[in-house]
Amino acid sequence: MPVVGKSVPRKDAWDKVQGKARYVDDYSFSDILYATTVRSELAYARLNGIDTARALSMPGVKAVLTHVDVQGKNAVPLVFEDEPFLAQDYLRFHGEPVALVIAESYEEALAAAALVKVDAEPLKPVLSIREAIAENAPKIYKDDNCFSRYNIKKGDAETAMKKARHIFEREYETPYQEHAYLETNGVIAVPGLEDSMAVYGTMQCPFYVHDAVAQAIGIDRNKVRIVQTTTGGGFGGKEDFPSVVAGQAAIAAKLTGRPVKLVYKREEDIIASSKRHPGLIKMKIGTDERGKIVAAIIDYYIDGGAYSTLTPIVLWRGTVHALGPYECQDILIKSYGVATNKVPCGAYRGFGSPQVIFAGESIIDEIADELKIDPLEIRRLNGYKVGSSTATSQIIDQSCGLMETIDRAAAKADWKSKWQAPSSKKGSTRTGLGISTVYYGVGLGAGGKHLDRVATSMTIMKDGSVHCAIGNVEMGQGARTVLAQIAADALGASYEMVNVVETDTALVPDSGPTVASRTTFMSGNSLMIAAAELRPRLLHVAKDMLGETRDEDVELIDGWAFSKRNANGQRIHFKELAQKLYAYRLMPSAFGWYIAPDSSYDKDTGQGNAYFVYSYCTNIAEVEVDMETGEFQVKRITCAHDMGKAINPQQVEGQIEGGTLQGMGYATMEEIRHDANGKMLNNAFATYILPTTEDTPVIDPIIVEHAYDRGPYGAKGFGEVPLMGIAPAIANAVYNATGKRIRILPIKPEKILGLE
Amino acid sequence: MPVVGKSVPRKDAWDKVQGKARYVDDYSFSDILYATTVRSELAYARLNGIDTARALSMPGVKAVLTHVDVQGKNAVPLVFEDEPFLAQDYLRFHGEPVALVIAESYEEALAAAALVKVDAEPLKPVLSIREAIAENAPKIYKDDNCFSRYNIKKGDAETAMKKARHIFEREYETPYQEHAYLETNGVIAVPGLEDSMAVYGTMQCPFYVHDAVAQAIGIDRNKVRIVQTTTGGGFGGKEDFPSVVAGQAAIAAKLTGRPVKLVYKREEDIIASSKRHPGLIKMKIGTDERGKIVAAIIDYYIDGGAYSTLTPIVLWRGTVHALGPYECQDILIKSYGVATNKVPCGAYRGFGSPQVIFAGESIIDEIADELKIDPLEIRRLNGYKVGSSTATSQIIDQSCGLMETIDRAAAKADWKSKWQAPSSKKGSTRTGLGISTVYYGVGLGAGGKHLDRVATSMTIMKDGSVHCAIGNVEMGQGARTVLAQIAADALGASYEMVNVVETDTALVPDSGPTVASRTTFMSGNSLMIAAAELRPRLLHVAKDMLGETRDEDVELIDGWAFSKRNANGQRIHFKELAQKLYAYRLMPSAFGWYIAPDSSYDKDTGQGNAYFVYSYCTNIAEVEVDMETGEFQVKRITCAHDMGKAINPQQVEGQIEGGTLQGMGYATMEEIRHDANGKMLNNAFATYILPTTEDTPVIDPIIVEHAYDRGPYGAKGFGEVPLMGIAPAIANAVYNATGKRIRILPIKPEKILGLE
Repeated sequence: MPVVGKSVPRKDAWDKVQGKARYVDDYSFSDILYATTVRSELAYARLNGIDTARALSMPGVKAVLTHVDVQGKNAVPLVFEDEPFLAQDYLRFHGEPVALVIAESYEEALAAAALVKVDAEPLKPVLSIREAIAENAPKIYKDDNCFSRYNIKKGDAETAMKKARHIFEREYETPYQEHAYLETNGVIAVPGLEDSMAVYGTMQCPFYVHDAVAQAIGIDRNKVRIVQTTTGGGFGGKEDFPSVVAGQAAIAAKLTGRPVKLVYKREEDIIASSKRHPGLIKMKIGTDERGKIVAAIIDYYIDGGAYSTLTPIVLWRGTVHALGPYECQDILIKSYGVATNKVPCGAYRGFGSPQVIFAGESIIDEIADELKIDPLEIRRLNGYKVGSSTATSQIIDQSCGLMETIDRAAAKADWKSKWQAPSSKKGSTRTGLGISTVYYGVGLGAGGKHLDRVATSMTIMKDGSVHCAIGNVEMGQGARTVLAQIAADALGASYEMVNVVETDTALVPDSGPTVASRTTFMSGNSLMIAAAELRPRLLHVAKDMLGETRDEDVELIDGWAFSKRNANGQRIHFKELAQKLYAYRLMPSAFGWYIAPDSSYDKDTGQGNAYFVYSYCTNIAEVEVDMETGEFQVKRITCAHDMGKAINPQQVEGQIEGGTLQGMGYATMEEIRHDANGKMLNNAFATYILPTTEDTPVIDPIIVEHAYDRGPYGAKGFGEVPLMGIAPAIANAVYNATGKRIRILPIKPEKILGLE
Repeated sequence: MPVVGKSVPRKDAWDKVQGKARYVDDYSFSDILYATTVRSELAYARLNGIDTARALSMPGVKAVLTHVDVQGKNAVPLVFEDEPFLAQDYLRFHGEPVALVIAESYEEALAAAALVKVDAEPLKPVLSIREAIAENAPKIYKDDNCFSRYNIKKGDAETAMKKARHIFEREYETPYQEHAYLETNGVIAVPGLEDSMAVYGTMQCPFYVHDAVAQAIGIDRNKVRIVQTTTGGGFGGKEDFPSVVAGQAAIAAKLTGRPVKLVYKREEDIIASSKRHPGLIKMKIGTDERGKIVAAIIDYYIDGGAYSTLTPIVLWRGTVHALGPYECQDILIKSYGVATNKVPCGAYRGFGSPQVIFAGESIIDEIADELKIDPLEIRRLNGYKVGSSTATSQIIDQSCGLMETIDRAAAKADWKSKWQAPSSKKGSTRTGLGISTVYYGVGLGAGGKHLDRVATSMTIMKDGSVHCAIGNVEMGQGARTVLAQIAADALGASYEMVNVVETDTALVPDSGPTVASRTTFMSGNSLMIAAAELRPRLLHVAKDMLGETRDEDVELIDGWAFSKRNANGQRIHFKELAQKLYAYRLMPSAFGWYIAPDSSYDKDTGQGNAYFVYSYCTNIAEVEVDMETGEFQVKRITCAHDMGKAINPQQVEGQIEGGTLQGMGYATMEEIRHDANGKMLNNAFATYILPTTEDTPVIDPIIVEHAYDRGPYGAKGFGEVPLMGIAPAIANAVYNATGKRIRILPIKPEKILGLE
């Protein structure tokens, strides 16, 4: 393997560090117009009318659009289509888009937007999960305020619970998390020939945006083209929301016949874009005398906000993962995606899992503590090994590195000699060690199976350089680099000659979303399929050029072809092979189409092979707490990850570092606050606090490779995993240091001191 | 065939008539710069230096580029690579690009360009074919002033000529022709991520431009993307020249790091862009007593201008076609592509054929006249039928409609009752009838065989609409419409749901040039291949939806699937099939890759199967001449064409009308004049006279369909043919009216009166 497994430099690094990368706001088009959004000031209200007259009379203003101007269907096409592109009949959250002002300059648009009058009659909003599920709750969504529900029934949890030696029952709560990507949402919609529409923008899911634009303006999909521009971060936050922005911009562009730029300021991005769902998790775990889990009953609630967006599928993933990577024969999980009058929540790295992982990894720590078992040992006892049965009764048949991640993290963090029970800690500055273990289903799983396929297009150019178009996007995670490594090795080209371009829906067919840690696995496999179609053509021409008679006597590695029978003889460069390929008029392009391995799910019992493979990790956090002030510092986090194969170890380490810090923000400082009327109070980075370089602990990444036989070179996918177990590891470390159990995130000095 | 063969409306018609189509000059990009070209004032000179200092100091000027600034190789990659992007060492024609001035506005660029000082030492130019081939000619290209030469030797022409009953020897000359496309040359080069370069522009051959940009700036081809913008006409004129413009703009864009627009004014487009080659044709024909051709010796010279560009292949086509569609066992053809110090000549509808057709169709008329044979009968006697052997000894094995075109044109033009010998004409206003017959090899033939393949990419979208990307371009000829018809029928979709988009080199691999009347045949076939891959998937899902058990029991026509066993039963719409295709996760895209049927050519003898198939036509022109002034009017031209199958009869008629008028301009008014120093004198439409609506005769198109079994639905390709035989038909009609034989085009009153 000449390139796979090597830390080759990122394809996009130089442009980005030099400031040459161009984000959507760096683009313009002739005759461009600028849009801004008029938003609801109320969390819940009946919409009686919108007075646009004064705004329309302002200088530079070309149009003020409301729901009546939507040419297609006023519904964002995600799961249920309950969210309008522009509010109609009701206002359902503070910040909801009501109107778009289109003007010759952004400043003119802003000035006019302030003059749009929204006539709305306030209604009493529902502002939390507990309010929404209360028996006498006002009904804001159907008759139960519930977007969706799932059940997992494995064995007989009620009976098993009764037989359990110990029963532990706890509630945990997790907060919102804002994605805080460097680049806010933004698109430019450009009307094209024959009523076609192109949209350029920052996004994770160009094919979702494709659907949204077609639906918003009511044109055939073969007239829509979505081009991803260099994307400054996504983390799930650009899975659903760009569909809203792009649909709106397209409506404006179609109406005006001119390009329209709609780029968000940070404040409106925070107020309006999707967030991580707040969670409420009720755990009841029964164990035997040794701490072996024998029964689990879990109720899992997430706050979906005002529209369903991705709540049904976020909830599904969280439901499946609710118990964590622990064997248990009798499980009952019920889950609820709840409606409230707040900003709709959607995807965020982990996708419904970090909430349940916080609960699960906290309660197992509580169990270990009460039963006086080493927290590491209780995980060894219960954790998945090859042959384990998951909550959905899936047998883990291969590629399960969980135990090795525990062992290697423990060794690196010196757990054995450092860990002591909380009771032994003394003094005003105390240190603690906490552990968490995580498993995570790679790809969309049975819940998103119909979308779990991906295309690539690969072309060998005349000069031997290779052009690959992919269906998954680069959004900073390094996909273009990792996929170029896979393509190069699969084809026999050198890494330098492979260019993987940013995603454009005209280049490859619908490849689903770029989510669920699926890109390396799915796009990697589809590139291997494309390469497998092209490589024989190269071997065929190489055979002739080398004077061989059989294609199978030729080898092609790292850009050079040679005879297997005479490995030290003549070598032919890829460039010459390409020229000959063209001279032979052999097709130099191929599509790769990869369909995910099968998965299944019974909707009544929740049983089945939920995901085709899982990744695993163990995090060990070390904290230092000032017992007088409650102030604490995360000193070190050791993270051992099994991703099957590290295609690019440096990038794997980068993912671990970034995810760990993001998880630390979630654990220790990030929260969104609302006033009593549901108005968001902290929509700026001055008030929504994020970890900075100064807060960064030592992060100690460990790569564990339990190859997956269907993965490209054994790789699974793990981009989300680094974030997921950080919060419980820190909470467990804080408990270990202080004896104070934090069950409501974020962990704050006030809570450690018991003041909140 | 629900759509093929029907005159469905053009896909691009509405946008074009409404002014919504966007040509390259309608586009802009952020931070764009404007370029203009400093050109040689001399036809031939040694280039000593270029003083850019004053220009550089002008307001708004960002750069003044000369040959030293070319980052890659200073040679346009066409056949021989003898032409620099910017002149180096020598100036070889009046109008040659010497420097580029890049400024913030076009006006600033123009102002500065006037201040660039070119220090050059004039040399004596060579200005005509006769000068170039004179024995003591100064040598401006190698040692013979000849870019290329060909021979065709069939049988023994010298011996056969000696045995001929009658021998006819004549010389003919044909002039330049300017393409006069509505839109001048122009591109915008846009630097992209990671030193990539995209070029948008008006062009026929995006893949040639791709080569040129990679070579001009020295980057890998997988970093180059060429996007054709709506193209306002080509006619061959945008085959080679956009490579020059795009290479120059890319050089400027790379150097400045900003988008650069380089769009020509009409005057510089005429002065600098390629033209139809002037021709000199020496014909010597021997016949038997009945007018049957028994020997032919032809010398064919074309004036290639200062650089070879496409001269070698233009000459090859003309050589093969030099005798016209006439059987003869003993043929000797010698041809010469000659260098002069004038604008390089390139492709123009007919590509080296109209020159020899003028000669061949004139001399056969002269023969008929001298032997007192009806000009129509001499063509019936000698013309190709199935089984005939061409000049290259190719046996015409099928699809030869020449005789039917003669018969049907003659019938429609009422030849039998109207035609009278010139000697019988009297009075001061005389009418005449003239005929020409033409055959034309479709596609690139053996001379361009290595490029004669084409790709398409076809995608069935989720809503059943179909997106096709093609390797050949739409340049006004109607390709997008005709290809959508073929794609629709091949797939079983409706025409309305098929969108064939403009060409973008990122969408399909190198598909060669859009020339040689090859688009319908080549791209049509490749779409049929792509459809043949996708259609079974649709039949498969249709089978399940219809409750059938075998795919072959399902039919899919015009957007509806139904059971063959129950044709009046359930019908399933294409949209539903597409949805099911996606639900099944079947690959919705396919490439089509079509390689032209084989052709061959022996370079010593010129013998072989030069083209895979030929199209045929007969033109009958009717003129009215004022014998006192020499003024004449072309009253009617009847044009019968065998193109195998008219995919869209209305578009076939449109091609006939446009080509006929263009041929009439060539025949009767168009010419480029130079002064004694080689300076072009008429570079404006005020001085270069074109036919207008007022000059347009009645054009009477007749469709003759001798299907070609390898063509899509039998189609061959004929876009160029309508122009090709017009000049001799008119010249023959003028002779028929007046008794005056015009052997040097254009036909003008002065010549009819014998004054010139």
